[in-house]
Amino acid sequence: MGYRDFVLKGDIAYSIAKDALCTSENSFLVCSDGKSAGVFSQVPAQYRQLPLIDYTGKLIIPGLIDLHLHAPQFSFRALGMDLELLDWLKVRAFPEEAKYQDTAYALRAYTALVEDLKKGPNTRCCIFATVHVPATLLLMDLLEASGLVSLVGKVNMDRNSPDGLRETDAAASIGATREWLDRYAEKKDKKNTNCGPILTPRFIPSCTDDLMRGLSKLQKQYRLPLQSHLSENQREIAWVRELCPESSCYGDAYTRFDLFGAEVPTIMAHCVWTEGEEMELLRRRGVYVAHCPQSNSNLASGMAPIRRYLDAGIAVGLGSDIAGGAHTSIFRTMTEAIQISKLRRFTGACDETPLTMEEVFYLGTLGGGSFFGQVGSFAAGYEFDALVMDDTSFAPPFALTLGDRLERAMYLSDDRHIIAKYVRGGVIQ
Amino acid sequence: MGYRDFVLKGDIAYSIAKDALCTSENSFLVCSDGKSAGVFSQVPAQYRQLPLIDYTGKLIIPGLIDLHLHAPQFSFRALGMDLELLDWLKVRAFPEEAKYQDTAYALRAYTALVEDLKKGPNTRCCIFATVHVPATLLLMDLLEASGLVSLVGKVNMDRNSPDGLRETDAAASIGATREWLDRYAEKKDKKNTNCGPILTPRFIPSCTDDLMRGLSKLQKQYRLPLQSHLSENQREIAWVRELCPESSCYGDAYTRFDLFGAEVPTIMAHCVWTEGEEMELLRRRGVYVAHCPQSNSNLASGMAPIRRYLDAGIAVGLGSDIAGGAHTSIFRTMTEAIQISKLRRFTGACDETPLTMEEVFYLGTLGGGSFFGQVGSFAAGYEFDALVMDDTSFAPPFALTLGDRLERAMYLSDDRHIIAKYVRGGVIQ
Repeated sequence: MGYRDFVLKGDIAYSIAKDALCTSENSFLVCSDGKSAGVFSQVPAQYRQLPLIDYTGKLIIPGLIDLHLHAPQFSFRALGMDLELLDWLKVRAFPEEAKYQDTAYALRAYTALVEDLKKGPNTRCCIFATVHVPATLLLMDLLEASGLVSLVGKVNMDRNSPDGLRETDAAASIGATREWLDRYAEKKDKKNTNCGPILTPRFIPSCTDDLMRGLSKLQKQYRLPLQSHLSENQREIAWVRELCPESSCYGDAYTRFDLFGAEVPTIMAHCVWTEGEEMELLRRRGVYVAHCPQSNSNLASGMAPIRRYLDAGIAVGLGSDIAGGAHTSIFRTMTEAIQISKLRRFTGACDETPLTMEEVFYLGTLGGGSFFGQVGSFAAGYEFDALVMDDTSFAPPFALTLGDRLERAMYLSDDRHIIAKYVRGGVIQ
Repeated sequence: MGYRDFVLKGDIAYSIAKDALCTSENSFLVCSDGKSAGVFSQVPAQYRQLPLIDYTGKLIIPGLIDLHLHAPQFSFRALGMDLELLDWLKVRAFPEEAKYQDTAYALRAYTALVEDLKKGPNTRCCIFATVHVPATLLLMDLLEASGLVSLVGKVNMDRNSPDGLRETDAAASIGATREWLDRYAEKKDKKNTNCGPILTPRFIPSCTDDLMRGLSKLQKQYRLPLQSHLSENQREIAWVRELCPESSCYGDAYTRFDLFGAEVPTIMAHCVWTEGEEMELLRRRGVYVAHCPQSNSNLASGMAPIRRYLDAGIAVGLGSDIAGGAHTSIFRTMTEAIQISKLRRFTGACDETPLTMEEVFYLGTLGGGSFFGQVGSFAAGYEFDALVMDDTSFAPPFALTLGDRLERAMYLSDDRHIIAKYVRGGVIQ
């Protein structure tokens, strides 16, 4: 299976736009030099000499994209779900994250995460690590070796966090971040290409202004993307309003440090309560929303108005938000995104049409994938991330369209149904 | 493993009341004559001669109870989830149900359902079949042989349903129901004990007054329990108001035919929009609410106020509502019940505290189990329905309480983690 160029035969489905799902039964998907050369009903002449891997009857779709998860929280997913965000951070998240000072602990916990990710349907992830440089580099090594593609951030936090996790001050946090980036750069010379760094101020409440200014400088120097949290929870938003009285909205608090899109490829997780000016900032500055519906339910944060963001032309992808969410699979997130969009009407949002199956499939593939470049589709030129799924175990006693099969795979599949997984044309094993 | 009386050793958790979870690590659960003789830290003298099955380190909990599912809808679960209730019934449910006229089709489809139920965590179910007598009897035979305990209803519907599924008139529907009950009674003489009948008027819109009157007579003659639907969707409720202008509420429409609790053990699925007088009817007449949160999200029905029902002393259990819900496991339903209870506040219900892990575990075991008698707990005298689960594959790198392990099993387990399943002391294989 170690071919560089090859052809897969099967029942192929992929998005080319948020409302355009392409389905091709019994067709051929060509991988050339790690990229899709397109989907064909017959193998074109120039590819006929390539090895053909016959997945007739199997579903072939792009790998799924997780725009938001916390690696050190994988160990305690599905615990303490009776708490809300700020209490949950204090009682569950922060004490656990402090343990990653110990690289032996980190090795054990991160290995379990990476094994889970390899088995599941996601092929690319944007990941929060912790403040700890050695543990973050260790996570990056594990992810590099996995063959999955990821962006990993050493977290910055120098206020409003417990001793043992809070960095001493802005200078210490920036110094550690530089050390992390420099040590990563040494590795990169050794041809690390799967895992890269992303700047990761935790969120406004845990970063001083000095730290944000320092990160802005670092961002420009290293030309790094950035991920953080935005408008997840009403208590959090009220807190940001107190901390940043001069800012007109939470998004503006990042913008003032030039850490909110525009030149900086940026993901903001959640955006449950974003409206008005903040929506306009997201749109104008090309910031990606990582929609994490399970987390928003588990932590009682709210129901994000994703239909409004899509209508406004805001970029949206999906996130598991481990461990606000308990499940890494973005299939699960897709179905939860539909469910939440349907329940929005009971909050008074009667004008919003629910998200469709085609739309959430787009969000979990091409929508989030575009943050990584040409990723999340099988249109020619896209990087070759693919899942091959055997859905026969839940085939009903009647014929299904390929779209129907895709809907069922979202709701019913688990890692047992994934029979092959490719990232950039390489097999994940 | 074919012992009649035996002892299980392991980490045991069970509810004894809605707010009382008992946890006993490394303890002994005694099965005597198909019933629990209790949980002990040491095996009492009178049970020391019994075979001991050593599940040290494994989780042992009562089997889960599904108070509401539609057997003929299993085949198309996770399809057409972009529709709402009344459209979905028309486009998806009714055409599929009409196929069960064909017993060969029914055999194929029902076999797949029963195999799924055997593998999953549920031990008892209340099931809607279709209007068809032969297919309903066939389903009952399959369930009888499975070892699971169930109540199955031949559905009654003589109006507002498509040709090919609608029964000709009330007399025909009652006649078919009598035939079904008489043919079941013949089987019962052959010692069928796992699967019994339950009267099943589909819902008010599909049953004429004559049919309801006939069912009330049948109920009294055969002394049968009853299941139906109540206040699921706002359009449906408006329709019932039109159909029954004399009724003060949807629940009253059943009550007028004496088919709403009191002497009739009754389950009403959904109760999403129940309030005021209808709540009082539920409480006073001891009607069980089958809460089906996933279905209520998938079909955009709403968010049921379960906290209010519990506070009012109304009996509540959980339902998968296959195929409004896509998943048979009541573990999944438990987590969704918590999530929906947290999101209720965004509908304006700010006074309702979310359901806790302990409460939803109660709802999915003892809460629903009590409909079957002394079922859903390990207190002495309860019928011996038990799951043994190996949760080591998701054990974190730190110690957990037994309550924590239970919470994780709810969110993270699937049928791979169930290593043994007992119903009334017999092993499900």
